[in-house]
Amino acid sequence: ALKRKHDNSSLVFADLTAEEYLQVRNYMWKQPDLDISHDAFAKPYENFIFMIDLQLPKKADVLRFLDEGAARPERTARVVVFHGSSSQIKEYVVGPLPNPTQHDDITQKKYKAELPINSRTVTIGEYKLLFAFLYREIFTKLSQILKESFGVQKDQTLNPFEGMPRGVQTGDRQTWISFFRDMSGMYIHPVGFEVLVNHSSTNASEWMVQKLLYNGQYFESAEELIEKYNAGNITKIIYKKITNYASLKPKVKPTGLGPQQIYLQGKRFSVQNNQVLYLDWSFAFGLSSSTGMRVFDIRFKGERIVYELSVQEAMSVYGSNTPGMILTKFLDASIGIGRFAHELTRGVDCPYTAVYVDTVRYIDINETKTFRNSICVFEHDEGRPLRRHFSDFFSNSYGGVVNSVLVFRTITAIGNYDYIWDFIFYQSGSVEAKVHATGYISSSYKISGSLKYGHQVAENTIGNIHTHFLNFKVDLDVLGVKNVFQTKDMEFEEVKLPWMPERKAKVPHLVEKQFSTELEACMLYSEKTPRYLHIASNQTNRWGHQRSYRLQVVSFTGEHLPMDAPEEKSMSWARYKVAITKHKDEESSSTSLHSQNNMWTPAVDFSRFLADNESIVNEDLVAWVTTGFLHIPHAEDIPNTVTVGNGGGVILRPHNYFDMDPSVGSPDAVYIHPD
Amino acid sequence: ALKRKHDNSSLVFADLTAEEYLQVRNYMWKQPDLDISHDAFAKPYENFIFMIDLQLPKKADVLRFLDEGAARPERTARVVVFHGSSSQIKEYVVGPLPNPTQHDDITQKKYKAELPINSRTVTIGEYKLLFAFLYREIFTKLSQILKESFGVQKDQTLNPFEGMPRGVQTGDRQTWISFFRDMSGMYIHPVGFEVLVNHSSTNASEWMVQKLLYNGQYFESAEELIEKYNAGNITKIIYKKITNYASLKPKVKPTGLGPQQIYLQGKRFSVQNNQVLYLDWSFAFGLSSSTGMRVFDIRFKGERIVYELSVQEAMSVYGSNTPGMILTKFLDASIGIGRFAHELTRGVDCPYTAVYVDTVRYIDINETKTFRNSICVFEHDEGRPLRRHFSDFFSNSYGGVVNSVLVFRTITAIGNYDYIWDFIFYQSGSVEAKVHATGYISSSYKISGSLKYGHQVAENTIGNIHTHFLNFKVDLDVLGVKNVFQTKDMEFEEVKLPWMPERKAKVPHLVEKQFSTELEACMLYSEKTPRYLHIASNQTNRWGHQRSYRLQVVSFTGEHLPMDAPEEKSMSWARYKVAITKHKDEESSSTSLHSQNNMWTPAVDFSRFLADNESIVNEDLVAWVTTGFLHIPHAEDIPNTVTVGNGGGVILRPHNYFDMDPSVGSPDAVYIHPD
Ligand SMILES: [Ca+2]
Ligand SMILES: [Ca+2]
Ligand SMILES: [Ca+2]
Ligand SMILES: [Ca+2]
Ligand SMILES: [Cu+2]
Ligand SMILES: [Cu+2]
Repeated sequence: ALKRKHDNSSLVFADLTAEEYLQVRNYMWKQPDLDISHDAFAKPYENFIFMIDLQLPKKADVLRFLDEGAARPERTARVVVFHGSSSQIKEYVVGPLPNPTQHDDITQKKYKAELPINSRTVTIGEYKLLFAFLYREIFTKLSQILKESFGVQKDQTLNPFEGMPRGVQTGDRQTWISFFRDMSGMYIHPVGFEVLVNHSSTNASEWMVQKLLYNGQYFESAEELIEKYNAGNITKIIYKKITNYASLKPKVKPTGLGPQQIYLQGKRFSVQNNQVLYLDWSFAFGLSSSTGMRVFDIRFKGERIVYELSVQEAMSVYGSNTPGMILTKFLDASIGIGRFAHELTRGVDCPYTAVYVDTVRYIDINETKTFRNSICVFEHDEGRPLRRHFSDFFSNSYGGVVNSVLVFRTITAIGNYDYIWDFIFYQSGSVEAKVHATGYISSSYKISGSLKYGHQVAENTIGNIHTHFLNFKVDLDVLGVKNVFQTKDMEFEEVKLPWMPERKAKVPHLVEKQFSTELEACMLYSEKTPRYLHIASNQTNRWGHQRSYRLQVVSFTGEHLPMDAPEEKSMSWARYKVAITKHKDEESSSTSLHSQNNMWTPAVDFSRFLADNESIVNEDLVAWVTTGFLHIPHAEDIPNTVTVGNGGGVILRPHNYFDMDPSVGSPDAVYIHPD
Repeated sequence: ALKRKHDNSSLVFADLTAEEYLQVRNYMWKQPDLDISHDAFAKPYENFIFMIDLQLPKKADVLRFLDEGAARPERTARVVVFHGSSSQIKEYVVGPLPNPTQHDDITQKKYKAELPINSRTVTIGEYKLLFAFLYREIFTKLSQILKESFGVQKDQTLNPFEGMPRGVQTGDRQTWISFFRDMSGMYIHPVGFEVLVNHSSTNASEWMVQKLLYNGQYFESAEELIEKYNAGNITKIIYKKITNYASLKPKVKPTGLGPQQIYLQGKRFSVQNNQVLYLDWSFAFGLSSSTGMRVFDIRFKGERIVYELSVQEAMSVYGSNTPGMILTKFLDASIGIGRFAHELTRGVDCPYTAVYVDTVRYIDINETKTFRNSICVFEHDEGRPLRRHFSDFFSNSYGGVVNSVLVFRTITAIGNYDYIWDFIFYQSGSVEAKVHATGYISSSYKISGSLKYGHQVAENTIGNIHTHFLNFKVDLDVLGVKNVFQTKDMEFEEVKLPWMPERKAKVPHLVEKQFSTELEACMLYSEKTPRYLHIASNQTNRWGHQRSYRLQVVSFTGEHLPMDAPEEKSMSWARYKVAITKHKDEESSSTSLHSQNNMWTPAVDFSRFLADNESIVNEDLVAWVTTGFLHIPHAEDIPNTVTVGNGGGVILRPHNYFDMDPSVGSPDAVYIHPD
């Protein structure tokens, strides 16, 4: 009973196929001047394809294709190469697919700068060297101490967890590595041992241990630690066995199944290639290895409302008095958000009856990898009416509509944290982008002064205070690309009562505003934001009002890093609840794969999108929406943070876009009348 | 497979039974000195029992009964009598049930003032007189005009909708009545005709029409309107037929059922009398005719967490340039929130498989009335994991828990608006109070200047800007009644890096605060609120932290009425996101049945609960939580406001209350391990 038919238009947004990845890789491998290593574990001084991803075609070309019958734009790939040999990162556009003939170095054009090699994400190849380094310089040299303190022996080791950024200024690549018990959920098993490794050279033989922290005390070298330990000059940690409080193994036997959602009359949605149809909705989807889930060309009753709705970044800033976490600011898109969209568990991550979609990626290895069932799509009854009214005076009747929605979901487990990303499609024409955090908190070993930075959540374990900031790109196109940005709010004003002018009353009225330029329109989190934010067309609805979509942000963010912190530019999008820019293909993302390891001179500084303060009147506008929450960990974060209350998002709501609520056409309406 | 067993303890909170209501009524009717009319349509000058409701027993007595084995406190009733004969409202406590022997006038003690008769809610009896008055003074006198302008004739009338407050100062009872087409969903069918009726006398023969508004023009009397109308001196409204855009009749045939939640292995919850059991949860429930839904003695694993969680008030302030709405400020508890908890529609208002409970009330008539299926209780899969983690490095495993929750719901249709009230019980020990608005907006006929106060949403119809403010009473008892109120937040501070003291960094840290008195602790909406608000015990959890519950408020409120507005005291709770008071049985509610019609000298002014600025350290604390949203109506509010984005609430979350997340004991946990 589908209302619409599938077509192939969505393929213009489709991620590369396994074959396409290999065609691109093989093409690049064949270029003698690039001299790319074929080794999955290429060394830092070698040249290595870190990532191949879809290069999104230019929006103008796509619109000509979708709306004007022009040919489908050429498919090309974005290829990120770590040129260890020349100490640079380069990005290439490789195409056309399926048989590439060309690779264009777009680095300078895209970033207006060279990308130094130390901005690169740590590869599996580099991790292999790092682990060997740690084995040699730490585990071997300190074996006695590690055994006595942490029980390290043949079949019991410690696992590393890295702090980021890796230093304090551009060029630095020195990482505080904290050690954790080798148990599932290691992230809440800190042992009180951290080492600072300088791995800034692409020649691993030059790497060195620069500092060590043992039980709150600092040492310049392994030798110094050994000497003082043996001399009895330091407070030792004595190993003791501990049961794994981080385990997720059920403590009780299932005692009966909870409620299950079942399609008694079949599915009302359909997924074909990368296209989803659901009642009046259609959209295309994809998954970037770096930034994650995204949908395009969202249409309601055939009319495009959103060109792109995409996850951009998941950022966290931590507080601590221990070095592994004192500086830590994670930018997950640099590690890869979409990269960690793993298989979803039926019946828990999504309902049993969901449709599951595989994704294919090429990142940080030398081949493609398929992630089975890593996207799910399902219809869900929210359990509360979409709307209803009961009347028993003047007129007796009941009318209501079930709030059945379509959910499009990925879950990305980036190290300790799992983010649940949902795009939700309502029968009333609203789209919601929602994210919840779960998984393990990051933690540190309790030392003197720790409680200023969090609560104790387990034996000697501090759950460190931190923020979650999530950024979405919302490229609404309200009746075409020429839009304006408006706000609406209320104010009280004293007015005379018209029938009794000697009497005054405070009456609320509507306050509407339109913003002219990018810098005017950015809504700082530190300031009061108008309550209604709209992307509007100059076209009006039947009642003469500008047709618009409202952005309703649901957010519980903490404080943003002060703007004078040297790392702030890498996360400058987080200053704003909502910022509006004029659309540019070159400003495709608020963040960058290369930001985490060069936060001080980031490849993308979002605030620069605004700095030219362009006109936003009758332009193609993009809204960049930030949500998140302050996380003060507590005992109930053990073993995992729950999703209840730990999320945020944005609802895109029609506001005078239609002439009346489009859910009047819902098949889920019920009407009861005494006659 | 229930974990717990039902008992009779919840009956201490049970609403009166049909029999009990009648016993109380009959007892009151028998008192010769009270001289109460038996007429369902008693006249304003007569004495009339407006409402009989459970008189909640004193908390100390209940706790002695629940916790110390004392006898169950006597059951008594609260009886609200409108003494038209002496121009006062009185409240009596009548008991003991089932055979009352006593009625105590508690008015003076409870309100520290007399309640003038014009503070009373308009009864059905008074409405009967008002309608007769309108028929005589308006419909008869103006029949010609009403026919030509609005098509009023034998089988087609206009329906009235009242503005409130009824005047501008204490003692006033003059109501602007706006007229609407006699169609279902009349609230969005204004015709442009309003009259001001003075019905302040308890003698209806003294009532009069004070003003009329026709198509934006004011008249002193029906005669003046007729004269000028006939003289052709006014702009006429010419009647034309209109199809009912407010109709909720489905526009399309059902094309297949959406997903249905089904208990494949039976229910995991149970309802007996007024007690609900669900996994680790238990609670008692009731429904006050005035304030609505409430639950008591919420326990998790047998331990009381909340003594009372209850709806207090639903308030709206409107903006307009027409008299029917220019002053309008609705206080729904004065009309009765619980009173309008009608039968719920299976499959729309709640799932088919919910358990439905009847309620019985005595309000504004002379007998009891049963409302079938007016409460529903169901388990619901939120469609997103409660928590989960996927790990594929260092350790390979997946653990997750389904977010299956218990929902306790009523829906109250108070005139145009329907509020969906939910209390939600999570397996992680959280309780959420959530409210969504739906139903019809209030509207006014478009005249010159109207667009300052809203948007046009239909032919000649303005959806007026307004606020929704909802108040909840949250009497948390964290390990007993002696609690403290604390806040937690973050701040950035510049610190020296411990291993590199020449280098400084801005690091977030935890800022904790404890508040000493009521006035210190009130969190004004107009000021920045700390992000974490806690009711804490002095007892600590395993990790040495004070066991607490956090209040996370989800809110999108507009501006609160300025404090110098004469009506503000009747809604002073809305100043605060959260206010904390020392518990008093006398301060059982933030609002009053008698506030709407005497907003200027309200029976309850919540701010007075704080004015004595009592200590809140180691006291029995009550949190009063305000949520809501600004509503700028738009075309999509026709026919009904959708629930998407139109709500608010508060989540009560354990924060160091437990030693770890209690959902580790959930039967819904799934664990996958490669071994
Ligand atoms: Ca710009
Ligand atoms: Ca746009
Ligand atoms: Ca007090
Ligand atoms: Ca309390
Ligand atoms: Cu967190
Ligand atoms: Cu509203």
